[in-house]
Amino acid sequence: MKIRVVENIYDYNKEHAEENRKIFKDNKIMTINILSSPGAGKTSLITETIKKLKNKRIGVIEGDISSTLDAEKLKEYTEEIVQINTGGTCHLNASMVYNALKEMNLENIDILFIENVGNLICPVSFDLGEDYKILLSSVSEGDDKPVKYPKGFAVASLVILNKIDLYDYFVFNREFFLNNVKKLNPSTEIIELSCKSSEGIDSWLDWICKKDISIS
Amino acid sequence: MKIRVVENIYDYNKEHAEENRKIFKDNKIMTINILSSPGAGKTSLITETIKKLKNKRIGVIEGDISSTLDAEKLKEYTEEIVQINTGGTCHLNASMVYNALKEMNLENIDILFIENVGNLICPVSFDLGEDYKILLSSVSEGDDKPVKYPKGFAVASLVILNKIDLYDYFVFNREFFLNNVKKLNPSTEIIELSCKSSEGIDSWLDWICKKDISIS
Repeated sequence: MKIRVVENIYDYNKEHAEENRKIFKDNKIMTINILSSPGAGKTSLITETIKKLKNKRIGVIEGDISSTLDAEKLKEYTEEIVQINTGGTCHLNASMVYNALKEMNLENIDILFIENVGNLICPVSFDLGEDYKILLSSVSEGDDKPVKYPKGFAVASLVILNKIDLYDYFVFNREFFLNNVKKLNPSTEIIELSCKSSEGIDSWLDWICKKDISIS
Repeated sequence: MKIRVVENIYDYNKEHAEENRKIFKDNKIMTINILSSPGAGKTSLITETIKKLKNKRIGVIEGDISSTLDAEKLKEYTEEIVQINTGGTCHLNASMVYNALKEMNLENIDILFIENVGNLICPVSFDLGEDYKILLSSVSEGDDKPVKYPKGFAVASLVILNKIDLYDYFVFNREFFLNNVKKLNPSTEIIELSCKSSEGIDSWLDWICKKDISIS
């Protein structure tokens, strides 16, 4: 019998990610993995999206260290929601997502949001089998996030800057932020919006619909 | 020759942390390890402290994945500053701090702030040899952080809630936040302040001076 050596956790994760990717493809689900710091507005973004994108059936996997707070907020808007509690682990991995998918009616989902654990560093390294990684940053975190936490910005298919209703309140150099994102990731799109005031939300909904058509 | 087995990274870290602790004690330095999400206001808190606590000689170790942005901001206020770039690692460890200490004039320091990497999860598990761990949260991150990221709040000697000038702007249930901190950590102190408006800063300065006297 051959002894199988799992070289590292990323290889191991990759195998599960490929399984997830096949499940998403077979079920024609577009999957978006949302990365951000704690409190940047991931749950608010998903809530606003479900409320406004009425013609899509949206499922959500909520990743948190503990609690079901975010899932409680969202269950008013979708039945297809599963909470993963990592119990201390700083990121979601593909195997956690694989197990969550078993609890969902996949034929009832067009778009699946995976809200990762709030952490601008570790989740970036774990492929979950998603179609797109989105990096959500916010004005209240400061304009220096791309410089200080470059990797997530560098790999994201889309960078969203949330809480732009706070532009006047914070010393936030918008050009500095945008230029540094572009430097790290010249091909990424950037959308500025506010989940509170709804400004810019339409650009985000357009982005989703455009991507969803290209996948279907 | 005996083969030494390092059982796990935490044991290895512990040894270095004890070395650091001895250095701090020998040099009569009070050391404070500041933990928070990205953008909660660690650098602002240190800046305000140095500006206002004129009778203490304050040193700073800045932890970031990349860049020297925070150190640049602080060098106007103190000469004893060292930047650690972790190059991707999501936390500071005791060995990084040990190496940073070699670059500092320890006899010129009464209080040393270690600004950890912005991450509410991983840095909590690494003892750096500090006297106190402080957990800095902020109103703009939301009132649910203690519930969703409990460990840092549970081990902190002090919890600071920053950006209270934004209380009116955000839907932030102050009692919910404070009660959950108390539930996780009944003996911790909690200080509410704003580095922007200076409200509450005096309570923080009092806390430092009280702790500094008890260590000296």
